[in-house]
Amino acid sequence: MKITEIERDAVYKTIFSRRDVRSDFTKQTVPDDVIKRILTAAHHAPSVGFMQPWDFIVVNDIEAKKQIKQGFDEANAESKQMFNDEQQSKYQQFKLEGILEAPLGICVTCDRNRNGPVVLGKTIKAEMDLYSSVCAVQNLWLAARAENLGVGWVSIIEDDILRDALGIPNNIEIIAYLCIGYVSKFKDKPELESAGWLPRRSVDKAIHYNKWSTENL
Amino acid sequence: MKITEIERDAVYKTIFSRRDVRSDFTKQTVPDDVIKRILTAAHHAPSVGFMQPWDFIVVNDIEAKKQIKQGFDEANAESKQMFNDEQQSKYQQFKLEGILEAPLGICVTCDRNRNGPVVLGKTIKAEMDLYSSVCAVQNLWLAARAENLGVGWVSIIEDDILRDALGIPNNIEIIAYLCIGYVSKFKDKPELESAGWLPRRSVDKAIHYNKWSTENL
Repeated sequence: MKITEIERDAVYKTIFSRRDVRSDFTKQTVPDDVIKRILTAAHHAPSVGFMQPWDFIVVNDIEAKKQIKQGFDEANAESKQMFNDEQQSKYQQFKLEGILEAPLGICVTCDRNRNGPVVLGKTIKAEMDLYSSVCAVQNLWLAARAENLGVGWVSIIEDDILRDALGIPNNIEIIAYLCIGYVSKFKDKPELESAGWLPRRSVDKAIHYNKWSTENL
Repeated sequence: MKITEIERDAVYKTIFSRRDVRSDFTKQTVPDDVIKRILTAAHHAPSVGFMQPWDFIVVNDIEAKKQIKQGFDEANAESKQMFNDEQQSKYQQFKLEGILEAPLGICVTCDRNRNGPVVLGKTIKAEMDLYSSVCAVQNLWLAARAENLGVGWVSIIEDDILRDALGIPNNIEIIAYLCIGYVSKFKDKPELESAGWLPRRSVDKAIHYNKWSTENL
């Protein structure tokens, strides 16, 4: 099946306009068929040995969200202390989650024991199943952007908070908690770039030919 | 910036027709501007704290490829032994890499110390930088599919082989070695699904609401 140039450009438009969204969520409900489409896209990510180790917990329960928000607040207060004084004053100005504002949360997990102890393609590189679930996150993220939905990855939270709020067993690995909803706008650039937290690295510095080159760094 | 329905459908077409390609590579050269486009797409993946921890080593040197192929052969022979007799006879029929046939290899790495010891968003979940590099892999994979390029992830290989072949320092984490090139066709379904190695799981079983449910499994 051939992808045309017009279709290709739609993919690039989606990739380059995808953002990590923490604010600008609207209250508009996300229809069930849209949720199903983005999760089906996630479910068609590559997976090691066709293991499909992921699951998706769709969260709209307000009590669960409040518990998750409190977990974020605690982890964020602890995290702030790890930065120096100058960084801390910048850090506390960033809004790093949209847990309560976004109509939906989606928790993406990885069942590392799915389909038995030996998985094709995971015999040498054991973390491949985790990486498969991350590929599902990125498929979901791009599908959501193509549906004009914002997605934000909340990484400043202890796994135990999510386990408790969502009843996730200890043998299931937590990969991501995502906030999802329609947004009033997508920012032109990543917020941390605009705010001068870190600059965009030149792509040419990231590309090496045949040998790792420290000259690129 | 709004994505239209036509553009959205192009994204879904790309996501659903993406394959893990190990054969059907043609000898057609991949133009430099196409390589640059897919790596620029990879470079615009989400990254924790805007860390951009990835690098991309583009491999077309035949000696490096031969060394990598030999590393795969050794790891694959070892891996085969981990399966039971019935599985082994199936396993050895699968072609699990296209290292020498694909015109290009791309090794994706992660510099875990980039931008200092404390990274925004990585204070609680230390593996976030690795996951950022995996998001870059998935962006690359979808951009490549949109360019009608096949991509195959070779996971059956020891990191040390890639370090040696490509001069990658010990402090740089290896995420993926990808084989890339134009293909004579994309298969309708994943090969491991068609071959009956594992079935496609129902997406409905992967979706839970508010609480993890073992009834789904």
